[in-house]
Amino acid sequence: MIRGVTKAGLGEIGSNEEYIRLADRFGFRSVDLNPLELIEQYGQVEAADLLARHNVIIGSFGLEADWRGSEDLFRAGLPRLVQQAEAAAALGCASCCTYILPATDLPAAPFMIAATRRLRLCANILGAYGINLGLEFVGPHHLRTHWANPTIWTMQDTLEWMEAIQARNIGLLLDSYHWHTNGLSTQELLALRPDQITYVHINDAKPLPIEDLMDSDRLYPGEGAIDLTGFLTSLQKIGYTGVVAQEVLAPARNESLMDLFSHSKACFDKLFEEL
Amino acid sequence: MIRGVTKAGLGEIGSNEEYIRLADRFGFRSVDLNPLELIEQYGQVEAADLLARHNVIIGSFGLEADWRGSEDLFRAGLPRLVQQAEAAAALGCASCCTYILPATDLPAAPFMIAATRRLRLCANILGAYGINLGLEFVGPHHLRTHWANPTIWTMQDTLEWMEAIQARNIGLLLDSYHWHTNGLSTQELLALRPDQITYVHINDAKPLPIEDLMDSDRLYPGEGAIDLTGFLTSLQKIGYTGVVAQEVLAPARNESLMDLFSHSKACFDKLFEEL
Amino acid sequence: MIRGVTKAGLGEIGSNEEYIRLADRFGFRSVDLNPLELIEQYGQVEAADLLARHNVIIGSFGLEADWRGSEDLFRAGLPRLVQQAEAAAALGCASCCTYILPATDLPAAPFMIAATRRLRLCANILGAYGINLGLEFVGPHHLRTHWANPTIWTMQDTLEWMEAIQARNIGLLLDSYHWHTNGLSTQELLALRPDQITYVHINDAKPLPIEDLMDSDRLYPGEGAIDLTGFLTSLQKIGYTGVVAQEVLAPARNESLMDLFSHSKACFDKLFEEL
Amino acid sequence: MIRGVTKAGLGEIGSNEEYIRLADRFGFRSVDLNPLELIEQYGQVEAADLLARHNVIIGSFGLEADWRGSEDLFRAGLPRLVQQAEAAAALGCASCCTYILPATDLPAAPFMIAATRRLRLCANILGAYGINLGLEFVGPHHLRTHWANPTIWTMQDTLEWMEAIQARNIGLLLDSYHWHTNGLSTQELLALRPDQITYVHINDAKPLPIEDLMDSDRLYPGEGAIDLTGFLTSLQKIGYTGVVAQEVLAPARNESLMDLFSHSKACFDKLFEEL
Repeated sequence: MIRGVTKAGLGEIGSNEEYIRLADRFGFRSVDLNPLELIEQYGQVEAADLLARHNVIIGSFGLEADWRGSEDLFRAGLPRLVQQAEAAAALGCASCCTYILPATDLPAAPFMIAATRRLRLCANILGAYGINLGLEFVGPHHLRTHWANPTIWTMQDTLEWMEAIQARNIGLLLDSYHWHTNGLSTQELLALRPDQITYVHINDAKPLPIEDLMDSDRLYPGEGAIDLTGFLTSLQKIGYTGVVAQEVLAPARNESLMDLFSHSKACFDKLFEEL
Repeated sequence: MIRGVTKAGLGEIGSNEEYIRLADRFGFRSVDLNPLELIEQYGQVEAADLLARHNVIIGSFGLEADWRGSEDLFRAGLPRLVQQAEAAAALGCASCCTYILPATDLPAAPFMIAATRRLRLCANILGAYGINLGLEFVGPHHLRTHWANPTIWTMQDTLEWMEAIQARNIGLLLDSYHWHTNGLSTQELLALRPDQITYVHINDAKPLPIEDLMDSDRLYPGEGAIDLTGFLTSLQKIGYTGVVAQEVLAPARNESLMDLFSHSKACFDKLFEEL
Repeated sequence: MIRGVTKAGLGEIGSNEEYIRLADRFGFRSVDLNPLELIEQYGQVEAADLLARHNVIIGSFGLEADWRGSEDLFRAGLPRLVQQAEAAAALGCASCCTYILPATDLPAAPFMIAATRRLRLCANILGAYGINLGLEFVGPHHLRTHWANPTIWTMQDTLEWMEAIQARNIGLLLDSYHWHTNGLSTQELLALRPDQITYVHINDAKPLPIEDLMDSDRLYPGEGAIDLTGFLTSLQKIGYTGVVAQEVLAPARNESLMDLFSHSKACFDKLFEEL
Repeated sequence: MIRGVTKAGLGEIGSNEEYIRLADRFGFRSVDLNPLELIEQYGQVEAADLLARHNVIIGSFGLEADWRGSEDLFRAGLPRLVQQAEAAAALGCASCCTYILPATDLPAAPFMIAATRRLRLCANILGAYGINLGLEFVGPHHLRTHWANPTIWTMQDTLEWMEAIQARNIGLLLDSYHWHTNGLSTQELLALRPDQITYVHINDAKPLPIEDLMDSDRLYPGEGAIDLTGFLTSLQKIGYTGVVAQEVLAPARNESLMDLFSHSKACFDKLFEEL
């Protein structure tokens, strides 16, 4: 498994160049960032060189095409999706991810109809560039009632949705926080095939009843109540060899970028030495 | 357009042979019945001959595979679905129909996920035999709250769903009662292409506010408040040439089979002479 | 049916503005042109206004994404395809067309595998903008052996391919020359449903055995051996109401643009008065 | 990886009961057989018990629906396909396999069109029962010209075809003989993901130039020129954990069933001790 970071949990990062440089320095081999932005900033040759020089890959980028709202909004995002896919392929990035909010203010059934069609198109476009689409189920209970109508939030429903969407390049984005808040155990992970997992996020939860955990109040991996050793060991056992990226959605901490990177490294070191 | 009947509105019919014979006698050129049952009753040669002798086609048959409940139940219906498709193709029947209940006791989003996958499979199996699948949206308002969670009931959502299911042989079953209770006008019909319509049901509604109309309390076509001339004229204008089948879901009437057939004929005669 | 022109058969046209103006002047209500180019030339507002002022629509534009060659080439065309689809939707154009060469220098089976996947993606992208993809089968016999390996050239195989591609928005581009050189009759047209036809090209053939007809040696509609009255009458009978666009692939004629437009109008007038 | 047998290479087996019993006795944990036949012979309860008693699974069964010929023939096989899928699911068998002949007497392009549509339907039906479809590419050179028109025979083309078919439950049936006769190395295996492999066949080849190897003249695994240790080690490395089933297509040997089973066991023992 490849150690990775996202920007969530690292405070203010000056530039993508610094982001990549520090990831390398602190032993992370993958960063999440927008490949098109990177090329726009540095040019394709220098962007590729920057990554190669630091032996860092772009693990994943976010699906920007808005598949949750109006058709016009969705369409408006397609030109940039194609460009991002092109940029990602040029830089060797093979995953694009999006999350499923567990509720919506739109009527649930028509929402799912439109979302199914739109995610299929996004997956098909990404697939033309050899990129997989990761769907992240979102566990925190408070979000299930944050909007009027429930959608889906379980791993099982997300797996079923992948069959309904019917694209070969769709898998799970498995986030330890959502695994935990869904009340899942290592058993459910051990029942997965590695190809069902496109990407993995790691972070930790306060020692509260899972019903009370807030989505934006996460801890660094290893500092909380989630059985992350069980989580990672299970992924290893089933043969997952992809990125495990830290994503700590939490209030900003009053620490330097170096301290946050250093802290993240320490957390990963401790977790990974037990594998 | 082809005049057709279903058994709804015709009381107790002794046998399929009588059903076909009377349809012919009263000028209906299409009957809805189960083609596999017909072959099981008469043998394939005699079943085909019975239809040919009376110049009557099987307009449509109901999709029996239960796509609304458990996966086991759905699977259990597949062997018979294939046999029915085979029987339908052997007897020249080109449509299979199912209706969408506007609510469900299951959570709506997972329900739509399973239903999308299952209807695709049904459509694909039917397609192998040259048969189209008609999806009937169901308008009566009381049904929208009859189960816990709303699904879909509008023509537009049904058209969208056809795109999400992504089979080429899916179209609408357009029922005048559901068109009326959805508050639609001829304008929405005129915006359709004929290939979007797999099948048409015709019947009438009591002169009540559409919110108060009950699904099982319909009238014979022409006896109620629905603008059936506008309905049929619009279908004719856009080039629909398929079956228009009477389906009068209503309490049993204390009349003979002959009287009910005769009454249906009179209703059709009046409506069709205005086209 | 809507009278349309393409640039093939009209000589050198100075600008798209002139093209649209003359189409209008000579009674054509549809032109084939690149909607993205039109917007790039005039801006979206003026482009739309130009079309509206002359009561002319863009009937269709050519699929520029190259689905016949390498994967790199195909990918390279996708960004522009999305932009074209966007432009087409903005200008109310609902069809994009491509032709199937009846042979290829690539091995036929792998070629069909790649082409199936690529055309599905193109159709899906176009579908997000409400645009249909028309597939043109190409009849002239000399082309069947022009490259090493035969692909497909019949209407029936093209219809089958549409099922294999499995997108709901794919139909035929029906060209009278290819219908003729395939030795088809009005019977095959009468067996079509209108939704199976995305677009129609019209032109004529020299009075030669169909085996000897060259693809680039066509005549103006009505001046040759094709039963165009039968062709158009059949399309009318089955309910086709879309564009019928002249496409005369032939050596340049030494005539003025005005004369060529005028000649085309006369050909159409004669043919359409018989419908 | 699970040691498995097929009937190819084991001579005349008296009954499925004997087949399962001997597989167990000689250390094979998987047999290839028709699950529907097993249920028809023993009843579902006893069939399941027979397998459980011997700790043997049904690794795979052959796709009997004929997707290579006429549409009528294909349709005729669908009812039994559904029944077989049902039987397979009831007995815990998760794979169904079919092979791709490298040539056909039908025109190649239309053949691929029909085959793409038909294999998608077969995969969809199997998928409803949780069963994967394995596609076996066939390497021997003499078969490429045995029929008039080449289709596909490479691993890469088969992987591409899986994308064109667009079902999520299709993977490779990887046979060591076809890997060898395609001139592939362990490098190509190491580039696969385990989920791309539905099933594995193992057998060996005479020490001849690969161009001269005949499809029906195979050797027992370990007795020939194929680098089976490299083959198996590579599959192990990428995380394949499924069945590796012996399939020795060869002239009958004048040996007893016990001797053939015993010989097969010895071959497997030798190969697997090196892993």
